[in-house]
Amino acid sequence: MGILENLKDYEGFRQLPKEQLPGLCQEVRELMVRVVTENGGHLASSLGAVELVVSLLRVFDPRKDRIIFDVGHQAYAYKILTDRLERFPTLRLEGGISGFPKRKESPFDHFDVGHSSTSISAALGYAKARDLMRQNHEVVAVIGDGALYNGLAMEALNNVRETQSRLTVIFNDNSMSISRPVGGLADYLARLAVNPYYKRFKEYVKDQCRKRQRGESIEDLLSRSKTRMKSLLQPNNIFEGLGISYWGPFDGHNLDELLEIFNLSRFYGQPLLIHLRTKKGKGYPPAEADPTRYHGIPGNKAGKTNPSGASWSDVVVHSVRELAETDERIVCLTAAMKDGTRLNGFEERWPNRCFDVGIAEGHLLTYAAGLAAGGMRPFVFIYSTFLQRAMDQLIHDIAMQDLPVVLLVDRAGLVGEDGETHHGLVDVCWGKSIPGMTIMAPRDAEEAGWMIREAHRQGHPAMIRFPRGLAPDRLKASGNPAAPAEWGKAEVLIEGKAPWTIMAYGKAVALALEIHELAAREGLPEPSVLDLRFVRPADWGRIDAALSCNRLACVIEDGFVCGGVGEAIAARANSIRGSARVLPFGVPDRYIPQATVAAQWRACGLTAQEILEKALDSLEGTAR
Amino acid sequence: MGILENLKDYEGFRQLPKEQLPGLCQEVRELMVRVVTENGGHLASSLGAVELVVSLLRVFDPRKDRIIFDVGHQAYAYKILTDRLERFPTLRLEGGISGFPKRKESPFDHFDVGHSSTSISAALGYAKARDLMRQNHEVVAVIGDGALYNGLAMEALNNVRETQSRLTVIFNDNSMSISRPVGGLADYLARLAVNPYYKRFKEYVKDQCRKRQRGESIEDLLSRSKTRMKSLLQPNNIFEGLGISYWGPFDGHNLDELLEIFNLSRFYGQPLLIHLRTKKGKGYPPAEADPTRYHGIPGNKAGKTNPSGASWSDVVVHSVRELAETDERIVCLTAAMKDGTRLNGFEERWPNRCFDVGIAEGHLLTYAAGLAAGGMRPFVFIYSTFLQRAMDQLIHDIAMQDLPVVLLVDRAGLVGEDGETHHGLVDVCWGKSIPGMTIMAPRDAEEAGWMIREAHRQGHPAMIRFPRGLAPDRLKASGNPAAPAEWGKAEVLIEGKAPWTIMAYGKAVALALEIHELAAREGLPEPSVLDLRFVRPADWGRIDAALSCNRLACVIEDGFVCGGVGEAIAARANSIRGSARVLPFGVPDRYIPQATVAAQWRACGLTAQEILEKALDSLEGTAR
Repeated sequence: MGILENLKDYEGFRQLPKEQLPGLCQEVRELMVRVVTENGGHLASSLGAVELVVSLLRVFDPRKDRIIFDVGHQAYAYKILTDRLERFPTLRLEGGISGFPKRKESPFDHFDVGHSSTSISAALGYAKARDLMRQNHEVVAVIGDGALYNGLAMEALNNVRETQSRLTVIFNDNSMSISRPVGGLADYLARLAVNPYYKRFKEYVKDQCRKRQRGESIEDLLSRSKTRMKSLLQPNNIFEGLGISYWGPFDGHNLDELLEIFNLSRFYGQPLLIHLRTKKGKGYPPAEADPTRYHGIPGNKAGKTNPSGASWSDVVVHSVRELAETDERIVCLTAAMKDGTRLNGFEERWPNRCFDVGIAEGHLLTYAAGLAAGGMRPFVFIYSTFLQRAMDQLIHDIAMQDLPVVLLVDRAGLVGEDGETHHGLVDVCWGKSIPGMTIMAPRDAEEAGWMIREAHRQGHPAMIRFPRGLAPDRLKASGNPAAPAEWGKAEVLIEGKAPWTIMAYGKAVALALEIHELAAREGLPEPSVLDLRFVRPADWGRIDAALSCNRLACVIEDGFVCGGVGEAIAARANSIRGSARVLPFGVPDRYIPQATVAAQWRACGLTAQEILEKALDSLEGTAR
Repeated sequence: MGILENLKDYEGFRQLPKEQLPGLCQEVRELMVRVVTENGGHLASSLGAVELVVSLLRVFDPRKDRIIFDVGHQAYAYKILTDRLERFPTLRLEGGISGFPKRKESPFDHFDVGHSSTSISAALGYAKARDLMRQNHEVVAVIGDGALYNGLAMEALNNVRETQSRLTVIFNDNSMSISRPVGGLADYLARLAVNPYYKRFKEYVKDQCRKRQRGESIEDLLSRSKTRMKSLLQPNNIFEGLGISYWGPFDGHNLDELLEIFNLSRFYGQPLLIHLRTKKGKGYPPAEADPTRYHGIPGNKAGKTNPSGASWSDVVVHSVRELAETDERIVCLTAAMKDGTRLNGFEERWPNRCFDVGIAEGHLLTYAAGLAAGGMRPFVFIYSTFLQRAMDQLIHDIAMQDLPVVLLVDRAGLVGEDGETHHGLVDVCWGKSIPGMTIMAPRDAEEAGWMIREAHRQGHPAMIRFPRGLAPDRLKASGNPAAPAEWGKAEVLIEGKAPWTIMAYGKAVALALEIHELAAREGLPEPSVLDLRFVRPADWGRIDAALSCNRLACVIEDGFVCGGVGEAIAARANSIRGSARVLPFGVPDRYIPQATVAAQWRACGLTAQEILEKALDSLEGTAR
């Protein structure tokens, strides 16, 4: 240590003698490992991008140039070197700095991100704005290989020629570090990397760079030797085909080379893509050895899940595996979330029936629709927040055709340290307007298994949502445990004595039971508890009955209140004479910043104490 | 005429002597022109694909092979030749056959469609299902050039190599027929079309085809001459780079060539893309001369808009133009809907401030976000139904960053003859859960102008939704015409005498006024009328007041009832002691098939007579 701690600010970094940069990279890595081990975060990607970021920040100046990161997993070094060194230990903690770029956090962050593949579109926008306003600065997008193969990034690449604005895309390609790259484009680029044409081109570019005379633009230089360039650039590659000059591949850990190439790019007058090959986890042996495991790690400080239980993801995959033993039509699909959704457990058993399409949620759902139309029974494993990327495919390709696709919507609700961009708060709000769609949420592992089996048996479009974290084995079941669960039915878990009831679904059912327990313990009026189970179709029979015989109904959900199930039930109550008053609890109408999931639930007022107090207050108010 | 009318069925077409095919194509074209001129529809694309479809249906057999059209604009000839000849005159009419492929309509239709770029994903699904079930049939996707450049199609292309399933993509490229193609890929393919390598390859393929001996597979043939093939295929093109063999380009109007190539493709063992160049509007001189105008035409029978008024689209573009005269930061964007949204009027004035990104709704919104972050003031022109494609970009890139992007959401609500896939029924349901988003709907042209000016002045994310059709100049304004309209405020248009009120927004306000008029005319209790104007933020002050002093509130909207504004207001009513009962009117929880817009409104119970009757019934029921 020493170089980093003596850095005052970004300007100090700019002034640092070049010889100190390798040492600085080392210190940045050490700091990242230390903080991320504690706080959790995306370690492997950020470790792989240290030299990239250091070189970028030496050549470009984010006080006037615009640097736009994709996803943001790789931006930790950027945060450390742009005036957030001291706050870096607060990474991903409540009140601390975000794990992703955020414009509100720092003037050095130029575009908020979290979901993948937005950087080229955003950079094109910045570049066009610059040209229209006759400004003169650089615009740089930094994008990884997984993100580049997404449709949004490809739409942006396709639009570059049309836009006629100059920008530099830095393509941080670490695909060779993880098992097998997904998709034809990945294969293509891997082959490109060993193409002798490009090796020759690289030497040529470097040579030109060295020879360039003061004041002479690289364009002049290149146009002088146009013929030679052309022969070097044969065969045309995909990017050249799209009107984007391609330079590379270069070693993304070689500081000298990076500085040289980035410098050169500033004098280049065309849209440019610079292909860098990096190693995920670089410089930290455990992460280099297992970059997938170190992609995102939970950290010691963060609300760690109890290792003794099974996660919701595990429970869900287990149930689908059981079904798949007896039904060969079952196939499982995911969009680059095989580890996160635990689908690797299914893949081990049936590699031929498990498909990872890469970061391509739209294709994921339409592909599933095609499989279903062709006679298969697809189960789609997707995070709630990423389902937002495929809402049209859900309605237009799956629901409208009534195809038997079951979506297993993981990480639904508040998700904790990833913050605003990663919550799954609209799956229910949006999904509940889709005709023909069934939406369920299990309260425990046992019910998750039942819902998966039944959704499969029904053979229509269905969504089953569940949260991040551990699944309780079995929460309290109804008075009559022998009564089988019913499709489309809510379940009375507790018949209360007082004129109030709590309705909830999914994870919120546990909170409903906790409220009942608290009321009982404190000798307060005890509510009945209704597990809604089905968001859609709603079990209006049981809901209406509960609304009719109570003075108050609290509806608790792990999603936005605005447009949520509580709103639908309150609307229903309005049509029932003498109905209960409905109090909806859930996520208020704002973006919920990073914290532990528990802290986020508290911030939204989702605690037994607070709901009980509000309910009792309201109950007094509704006394008749 | 004669060949078509003597065709019994698809089998009859298969048996037709080859010499009669040119005559058949001519008759199919005549029928299409006749019917579409009457009924409206997508003429130019379907005219351009007649030989393509005829050859396809001779070589492939859709009774076992799977043929999947993209968008469906080009499928009219397919419908005519697959047992829907007699019903073809009912195209797009209520109760008639759909303008798009529909599985419920015919066993020959294998995948429902309407939105673009789904065909390759769906075909991949079918192909994978076939392989998993060890079936043996062909899977063919037919996709146009506009659709191919969309991110969904590109994600699917990128996934072909991974899927390891054989399919044939027929790329119907008519880009050269319309002005300038949009995007780098279009340029690339245009250059490909004149590449001498491909000219040579085409000759080679045809030559092989002629020489092939009975029973010999083309694979054997091709593998024998592998070296020669490779040299012919240099330079690699984009598709080859993705692991998809590329054949072409061929003349898409030459029946002999098409039959030859399609036949050849059946013996090819790899994923294959066949590039055909066709002419939009082919065979119908007016459409050939102006394919853009004949892309979609309204037809004589269909509820034609009164030519004396201005359409909503015209009104909106006019207002944005006025603003743009004084604010240079304003730029306009669209995704391949420059004509439909009338944005061409803006482009004429400021070609440099008008961007068509092609069919790329996701990129459209993130690009707009980048422009806004860079200091511009983007106005995005998009159809409501296609906004479904970019919901994540709306929340993640625009709303969460609070960027000043104004969305002009055209064709909101029920849209008529295009049917199920094209309605804009969820923009409000989904948009109203997004924190930080403002959603407005003007009742008339005057208010549209005001909303556009104010949304611009406010400088935050905003959506302004309006329907297809003519905009009334000025509907009744409030009692005090001098009172200026207010941001975020609803407006009382009529102070009624009876204890009931109608609330509505956008197009439904005219219906609300009509109901009032009908009640007055018939001497029935007259409602007050409240124009909500703002879906979000809702003007709870005025809404609460109306709920408090009435016994009944009817909420009318041109969108799904489930998750709509009526539901939100009914929920609100539940929290107000002694509130009115709320009756929500809108689109019920199902997909609304093709008909005129007026017939669809009737089918949803959205008529003055029906709402008035229900309201009065309910009013009696709520008598206290």
